[in-house]
Amino acid sequence: MSLLVVGTVAFDAIETPFGKTDKIIGGAATYISLAASYFTSEINLVSIVGSDFPEEAIAQMNDRSINTEGLQIIEGEKSFFWSGKYHNDMNTRDTLVTELNVLENFDPVLPDSYKDSEYIMLGNLTPSVQMRVLEQLTKKPKLIVMDTMNFWMDVAMDDLKDVIAKIDVLTINDEEARQLTDEYSLVKAARKIRAMGPRYLVIKKGEHGALLFHDDQVFYSPALLLEEVFDPTGAGDSFAGGFIGFLAASDDLSFDNMKRAVIYGSAMASFCVEKFGVENLEELNREEVNERVKQFSNLVQFTAEA
Amino acid sequence: MSLLVVGTVAFDAIETPFGKTDKIIGGAATYISLAASYFTSEINLVSIVGSDFPEEAIAQMNDRSINTEGLQIIEGEKSFFWSGKYHNDMNTRDTLVTELNVLENFDPVLPDSYKDSEYIMLGNLTPSVQMRVLEQLTKKPKLIVMDTMNFWMDVAMDDLKDVIAKIDVLTINDEEARQLTDEYSLVKAARKIRAMGPRYLVIKKGEHGALLFHDDQVFYSPALLLEEVFDPTGAGDSFAGGFIGFLAASDDLSFDNMKRAVIYGSAMASFCVEKFGVENLEELNREEVNERVKQFSNLVQFTAEA
Repeated sequence: MSLLVVGTVAFDAIETPFGKTDKIIGGAATYISLAASYFTSEINLVSIVGSDFPEEAIAQMNDRSINTEGLQIIEGEKSFFWSGKYHNDMNTRDTLVTELNVLENFDPVLPDSYKDSEYIMLGNLTPSVQMRVLEQLTKKPKLIVMDTMNFWMDVAMDDLKDVIAKIDVLTINDEEARQLTDEYSLVKAARKIRAMGPRYLVIKKGEHGALLFHDDQVFYSPALLLEEVFDPTGAGDSFAGGFIGFLAASDDLSFDNMKRAVIYGSAMASFCVEKFGVENLEELNREEVNERVKQFSNLVQFTAEA
Repeated sequence: MSLLVVGTVAFDAIETPFGKTDKIIGGAATYISLAASYFTSEINLVSIVGSDFPEEAIAQMNDRSINTEGLQIIEGEKSFFWSGKYHNDMNTRDTLVTELNVLENFDPVLPDSYKDSEYIMLGNLTPSVQMRVLEQLTKKPKLIVMDTMNFWMDVAMDDLKDVIAKIDVLTINDEEARQLTDEYSLVKAARKIRAMGPRYLVIKKGEHGALLFHDDQVFYSPALLLEEVFDPTGAGDSFAGGFIGFLAASDDLSFDNMKRAVIYGSAMASFCVEKFGVENLEELNREEVNERVKQFSNLVQFTAEA
């Protein structure tokens, strides 16, 4: 099934205890699309870059069957740039630089061929921009997944809630779930968020895994235990890409398959953090992905009786 | 199989966002023994209290088949008392009062009938006291499990390492594992700790579950998602009691059974935190425990293929 991905395509400069990068390719939609490309080959990207963005990077996306017809390239302007430094625990980071550049006036225009996409992934962006994407769809999609962050809760809560009311799955982290609902208990927070609209909620807990809520059901995916996490940048986006990519490919929205999608998403996030930037997401094959999913199964599998 | 439990039997006064208790019955060995009593009926308790400790509390332990022959009662002296206040996130707490009282001169004396116990649980205590218990054993036990805390790493690291060298399973939390090894990565910390002696390591992550390490195998138990955690006091001890109680009853040290034991331990911890103090550990039945273990299975169960 066709998958529409909207989000940033950008440059990042990252510093972690393991090293430091120059400007490298990043952006939510980049991670999402690359992660999804291991499952489905009908990916329609909507984003914006400046003319400083390398043609090879776009060509590499096309090589992975990512359709970039909806990627606006603004002549003479610069791409979105983010720079950050992770602390020793890798769970917290300082933003060093944010240059919006082309993102400042981003009006996402969907090519006609995108307008009947069946799976929609709204990567983290200004809520009103996410809404503009939904408004251009000509056919009710099978599933709309949305990612967001605490920043939009601080500066655009009303717009954010308008989008949340229109989606099927919200993916946020535990602190954001608490901020959005004023509830410390994730069980209570999940109930409140689902009452805002989404039938499903994924709460991402970083190195502590991810939770999927639906009706009175809960599913928990652990995070794989890695020797080292080199660079957490893009982990949440890789999760989202694996999650919706797997669903778009299998076109099965049963709860059992949603659980599977959470595991495939977690697997893609675990690959992402093993190297800097998108490096690891460009080199995998589907067998490696399946092998990693088996590791998740081994990690939690037990029988209650001997 | 017979299970020897050494640790504190004491009074606690606890304040959480949900309420405040007067002096209630607490202590590591109390939680451990009660949790273990749902699995095995041969529990030999070694501890010390003052004459202020209520006879009914001891009678209640005896009712749950806990042998208190090794519980020293010091006439005219007072029992160990701890008072603490949990912060809103329930993961951090301030100690308000610590009165060692009888604990100051605790020399654990094993009754003869205890000396050939097959399963040994060293609850959190001064490492030299834990060692004194091991020295009195006349037969090599099948399994020695030890709990400890960061405090002993600060004030008695050498003694602590001497005991760690003699045990089979160490249970500590993630921060303690990092402190003990100077490694942030839990994979690396686990490797270093197992090199100190224990064949097995359990790293407790509170609301984020628990990890079991053995050779190159890792097993992960989630924590059950509870509506509210009322009082985290004793959760780690309840885990340890369920863990070793299940092993002593099944007398099976295969890795599959160790995994099961981690789940049963996690189940007992989840009961513990639902009420103040040991209240919930006095009222359960084995069917409720088995029912809860099924909830752990449902929480993580998935199939990689449709």
